[in-house]
Amino acid sequence: MSFNTFGHLFRVTTFGESHGVAIGCVVDGCPPRIALTEADIQPYLDKRRPGQSRFTTQRREPDQVKILSGVFIDEATGEQVTTGTPIALVIDNVDQRSKDYSDIKDKYRPGHADYTYDAKYGIRDYRGGGRQSARETATRVAAGAIARKIVPGMTVRGALIQMGKHGIERARWNWDEVERNPFFCPDAEQAKFFEAYLDDIRKRGSSVGAVIEIVAEGVPVGLGAPIYGKLDGDLAAALMGINAVKGVEIGAGFAAAAFSGEENADEIRMGNDGKPVFLSNHAGGILGGISTGQPVVCRFAVKPTSSILTPRRTVDRYGAETEISTKGRHDPCVGIRAVPIGEAMVACVIADHYLRQRGQMGETPAWPFARA
Amino acid sequence: MSFNTFGHLFRVTTFGESHGVAIGCVVDGCPPRIALTEADIQPYLDKRRPGQSRFTTQRREPDQVKILSGVFIDEATGEQVTTGTPIALVIDNVDQRSKDYSDIKDKYRPGHADYTYDAKYGIRDYRGGGRQSARETATRVAAGAIARKIVPGMTVRGALIQMGKHGIERARWNWDEVERNPFFCPDAEQAKFFEAYLDDIRKRGSSVGAVIEIVAEGVPVGLGAPIYGKLDGDLAAALMGINAVKGVEIGAGFAAAAFSGEENADEIRMGNDGKPVFLSNHAGGILGGISTGQPVVCRFAVKPTSSILTPRRTVDRYGAETEISTKGRHDPCVGIRAVPIGEAMVACVIADHYLRQRGQMGETPAWPFARA
Amino acid sequence: MSFNTFGHLFRVTTFGESHGVAIGCVVDGCPPRIALTEADIQPYLDKRRPGQSRFTTQRREPDQVKILSGVFIDEATGEQVTTGTPIALVIDNVDQRSKDYSDIKDKYRPGHADYTYDAKYGIRDYRGGGRQSARETATRVAAGAIARKIVPGMTVRGALIQMGKHGIERARWNWDEVERNPFFCPDAEQAKFFEAYLDDIRKRGSSVGAVIEIVAEGVPVGLGAPIYGKLDGDLAAALMGINAVKGVEIGAGFAAAAFSGEENADEIRMGNDGKPVFLSNHAGGILGGISTGQPVVCRFAVKPTSSILTPRRTVDRYGAETEISTKGRHDPCVGIRAVPIGEAMVACVIADHYLRQRGQMGETPAWPFARA
Amino acid sequence: MSFNTFGHLFRVTTFGESHGVAIGCVVDGCPPRIALTEADIQPYLDKRRPGQSRFTTQRREPDQVKILSGVFIDEATGEQVTTGTPIALVIDNVDQRSKDYSDIKDKYRPGHADYTYDAKYGIRDYRGGGRQSARETATRVAAGAIARKIVPGMTVRGALIQMGKHGIERARWNWDEVERNPFFCPDAEQAKFFEAYLDDIRKRGSSVGAVIEIVAEGVPVGLGAPIYGKLDGDLAAALMGINAVKGVEIGAGFAAAAFSGEENADEIRMGNDGKPVFLSNHAGGILGGISTGQPVVCRFAVKPTSSILTPRRTVDRYGAETEISTKGRHDPCVGIRAVPIGEAMVACVIADHYLRQRGQMGETPAWPFARA
Repeated sequence: MSFNTFGHLFRVTTFGESHGVAIGCVVDGCPPRIALTEADIQPYLDKRRPGQSRFTTQRREPDQVKILSGVFIDEATGEQVTTGTPIALVIDNVDQRSKDYSDIKDKYRPGHADYTYDAKYGIRDYRGGGRQSARETATRVAAGAIARKIVPGMTVRGALIQMGKHGIERARWNWDEVERNPFFCPDAEQAKFFEAYLDDIRKRGSSVGAVIEIVAEGVPVGLGAPIYGKLDGDLAAALMGINAVKGVEIGAGFAAAAFSGEENADEIRMGNDGKPVFLSNHAGGILGGISTGQPVVCRFAVKPTSSILTPRRTVDRYGAETEISTKGRHDPCVGIRAVPIGEAMVACVIADHYLRQRGQMGETPAWPFARA
Repeated sequence: MSFNTFGHLFRVTTFGESHGVAIGCVVDGCPPRIALTEADIQPYLDKRRPGQSRFTTQRREPDQVKILSGVFIDEATGEQVTTGTPIALVIDNVDQRSKDYSDIKDKYRPGHADYTYDAKYGIRDYRGGGRQSARETATRVAAGAIARKIVPGMTVRGALIQMGKHGIERARWNWDEVERNPFFCPDAEQAKFFEAYLDDIRKRGSSVGAVIEIVAEGVPVGLGAPIYGKLDGDLAAALMGINAVKGVEIGAGFAAAAFSGEENADEIRMGNDGKPVFLSNHAGGILGGISTGQPVVCRFAVKPTSSILTPRRTVDRYGAETEISTKGRHDPCVGIRAVPIGEAMVACVIADHYLRQRGQMGETPAWPFARA
Repeated sequence: MSFNTFGHLFRVTTFGESHGVAIGCVVDGCPPRIALTEADIQPYLDKRRPGQSRFTTQRREPDQVKILSGVFIDEATGEQVTTGTPIALVIDNVDQRSKDYSDIKDKYRPGHADYTYDAKYGIRDYRGGGRQSARETATRVAAGAIARKIVPGMTVRGALIQMGKHGIERARWNWDEVERNPFFCPDAEQAKFFEAYLDDIRKRGSSVGAVIEIVAEGVPVGLGAPIYGKLDGDLAAALMGINAVKGVEIGAGFAAAAFSGEENADEIRMGNDGKPVFLSNHAGGILGGISTGQPVVCRFAVKPTSSILTPRRTVDRYGAETEISTKGRHDPCVGIRAVPIGEAMVACVIADHYLRQRGQMGETPAWPFARA
Repeated sequence: MSFNTFGHLFRVTTFGESHGVAIGCVVDGCPPRIALTEADIQPYLDKRRPGQSRFTTQRREPDQVKILSGVFIDEATGEQVTTGTPIALVIDNVDQRSKDYSDIKDKYRPGHADYTYDAKYGIRDYRGGGRQSARETATRVAAGAIARKIVPGMTVRGALIQMGKHGIERARWNWDEVERNPFFCPDAEQAKFFEAYLDDIRKRGSSVGAVIEIVAEGVPVGLGAPIYGKLDGDLAAALMGINAVKGVEIGAGFAAAAFSGEENADEIRMGNDGKPVFLSNHAGGILGGISTGQPVVCRFAVKPTSSILTPRRTVDRYGAETEISTKGRHDPCVGIRAVPIGEAMVACVIADHYLRQRGQMGETPAWPFARA
């Protein structure tokens, strides 16, 4: 994972600024002969796309993805499939609303990366956040749509489980609800509360954070690698690399610190399918950096949107003290749109480890062993 | 970060099993002409070393490090310095107490990586945990001692801030206390409580988790890279890659989810030294993946030691249901010894980013700009 | 160097097939604040572009490059400069002449990668060679134009020094001639001979190989790294990675095998500028994988174009024996257009090592030492 | 390939200086359950070991390899096997003959990397060449012994085919002869000539270069990757990375430049085993960067040993002009011992690509296709 690329065998390199010509990515290492058209990718982009409810920024971007390379028609089936060569995806920037940037081009917005980018590079595209804009995450979502097709039988789903101080009730978790409310919230009752709660925040020009949970099911046992290529290590990097994320957990996460060893141990029995089954999943599907075959469960915390109406004290790039407030189109809870992004990152990391595992080990599983 | 190597320009590759001949690492990319002898490394190893109080495993390992390569005497000064070539460090395994492994060689201990290693590799060195043993972390601590010498003016310190359900009182934080109690706890009062608390746990053959905080001061502004080479992304991977870690936070971490945008924004003023100073540090010293010049603050959660006396249900490698309990030398709170390990990982990641930053940007800082 | 990416700190990832929508690349790690517009890149593409004389394929591609990201207007100067974020470059495929591919879609052309691609991937875009087409090299040339701007004072120039069995006369070497004939040949007299020679080959539908020499001047001493990050090792990979290249040499190259130690040793004296100067350059500017400060000299051999009119025996993808001959637009000597490509690869490799050197060593050169 | 590491899935990291404590390497990514003891590695080290005839340096190094990690006894078979974790190999430096280095510690020997190392690092272990010593190659040979066990059915053999100006007669090529003379020469008659020839050079304190050919048989079709992960690109880097190598060829190599397209095309017929067979192998077993299933054939040129008795002009590290001649133990033709090193590098590169291929493609070959 380096710079603007992540992954080893399934590698994603992204480019683009919020208000430049286009954003996009190159997906390298994808196995060949996987059916792939724009229609496989677009639904995930639509899920992330802004402007779909009053709770996300009103910027109007169609986010239409184009595949530039790496696919061809399989004449045996007539289907468009991957060829194993790099898949370039491009999304044009359409809604580059001509806007007055005079306020933010020299002032560093607190909570944003304005100061750090400027201090690092000495130059930055300040329009709409430039490279630091959450707009870049659309390209990850597109890559994730391809990643989902690589691990047979894997599904990756995400949900918003906390907004501000308000968590959901896990007993009411219903995956179907996630698609039914604008918060990707699996608890219908709490989703109703969030509607009024976030409306109030939005109207006040304030913002709030969130916690997102991603669950990957159908992950084979044995993915990951000990020590520095740990599956959880790579997941942590991938999720922490999403804009505004400040914390990542696997399984029980921080709660595990308060457990006793007895509570924490996920006991094991044999399942009817001849595979071990864990009686609990505090490990979040990963032990020693390697997948257990149980669902992989991650959570990440998203800080509140830094663009708010209330003026905040800051300095400008020439060292003068000043203050700034942000007007215009913004998400009151940027965590909402982080759900499809988190799903995409998890799918990409697991796909990469699936190929790495196959490389080192081949396709014959080591387990189960013949009974002595 | 891949497999058994981490870092890009400052690269660490480790090897070794708990009860093999030796463990060690190769540190590649270290700048030349940095004074380095075993005496620079040994104190950090001694800090991590087991058997120093009744609260850590009684295994007796001298953990004596040897430098095999990459250093030479600078004849101008008579000092031994790095040469810029790979530095190999080896620590012999001494206390390979002959033990009966018949119980654990076939049974999968819940909470340990026995099952996942076996399912992945089909073979494993089960003696003392083999490659999954926390013993491997000694090599990281050794590498971290070198990393500390790379970033001028940087200090990296860690502390245990929670054990089981019991957190410390931040108002009583005193870095000097960390060296005075066997828990690396900065709160002297709580350290006293931990003594009785952990004694009880130890005597019952149980275990408990912990939360560790690492603070790096003197980190220059501008380290890190946007998107996938984020400083916080690499820190998250490095810390999640420590044995038994289940969660990682930067700055406010999960608490940020409950903040409003107004609370979260770290306001900025000009310091007397002509550099921006942040009035708070919810960001933990990182914005947009790039260091702000404020202290970099990370926390990670360590699950309770999985080796406990209470029998737990499990299966063996041939698919038979059984149960297991762990006798022998173990840490009742493996989180304690994670303090020097966390420091080492943070030092390595920041050293790597320091070199990467210098590579792309050169040594002339972009900031401050001449006032217009 | 992996898959479709090369370089460590200056990284280039390319994508695209000959007859797909577009080809392009993402250049990551470029230092910020370097002046860059399409006009800096286009002249190099024009040099490589086909159809400029009767000696290169008559495919008509404007090869117009577009910068999609990674640049911004520096308001202090009004100039467009790099921002340090990824620079995406795209070149649309325009001349996708509708052609009958029925002959080549199933038959493997000898000398081409048809069989190996099919055997590896099981699917391939056979139109115009797909991903194996030399068209991909346009993107490297574009990346090379950026690389040239990174190392202060460096120039990289190339020339064709052999066509078929016919070498040039080194005594007549004139860099100015390279721009004056369609062969990039520095020997005006031999260039005249090549005209008739290649015309004959072209008319017979045959083809011929070539040897290209690339010279990089102004390369600072100290670039490269011992053992596996050797400057010559990376140059060898980069040049061998150009389509149809079968051999690479540094300095004296294969001739060095016939030298005695006395002949081979490049003796050293002190230059007037206080730096060592070598009395010969058999080393080609590299000793122990590290640049000496002398010109870096590389040569590579390009095999003859595999597309020829004479029928050759082959098999088809279903295992039937058959034969094939290639009609249509092709270069009689593909080596000619390899000159700008070789320059680009050398520029990219040296730029990468320049940044890597600066990362590990900083900007203060180790040498010269104070005289004792 | 970076710094002191090469390979992607089969990764080798080496360390050590000629006269330090030890040299060694860490082999990461090796598949588990491959039988491995020191006895599998030692014969290759013995082949490379100096002092075995009067034609190689008389330094007396037992070159005894020790495995520190990554192996375990498979209790089902009683055999020691790899575990899939990093395999650390160490070779102690024994013959560190106390010697007077006062002459070479400040003077730069022409043809050696003394100046470039000093200019880069500002410090170097000058004893016996330090890190630039060919001694480091022992670790590659050790790694290569492991690599050979990864690709089923592959054999990698090398031979010296030219010494000074004198090539062998290919018609007399006999692999068995390679083991029978001290030059690894497959032409018994020429080997006899080399004996007198090299004796003369040795007695005069001079040296001479060589050309080595490596042939890998049993390489499956489909290894390699287009563009920058080409099998030939990685082989070129690996072979150019051997000390003193100045040129690398695949298949026909530089001779291909003089071929016509008709001569160069390797025609294809169907073999009796239902696989394509090439009627010639100018391609050296690689087309488009991907293996064809034919033998992979590489050659590399080794310059003459730079340590010679004749004084050569040079400068010292303080900028004074001086001269130097080398006394002591040296190989008159360092190319001889490059044979086992070249074999090892080729084995490592192909093993790496074998795992990479398996990662992206799985184990089911794409070819042959069902006949329509």
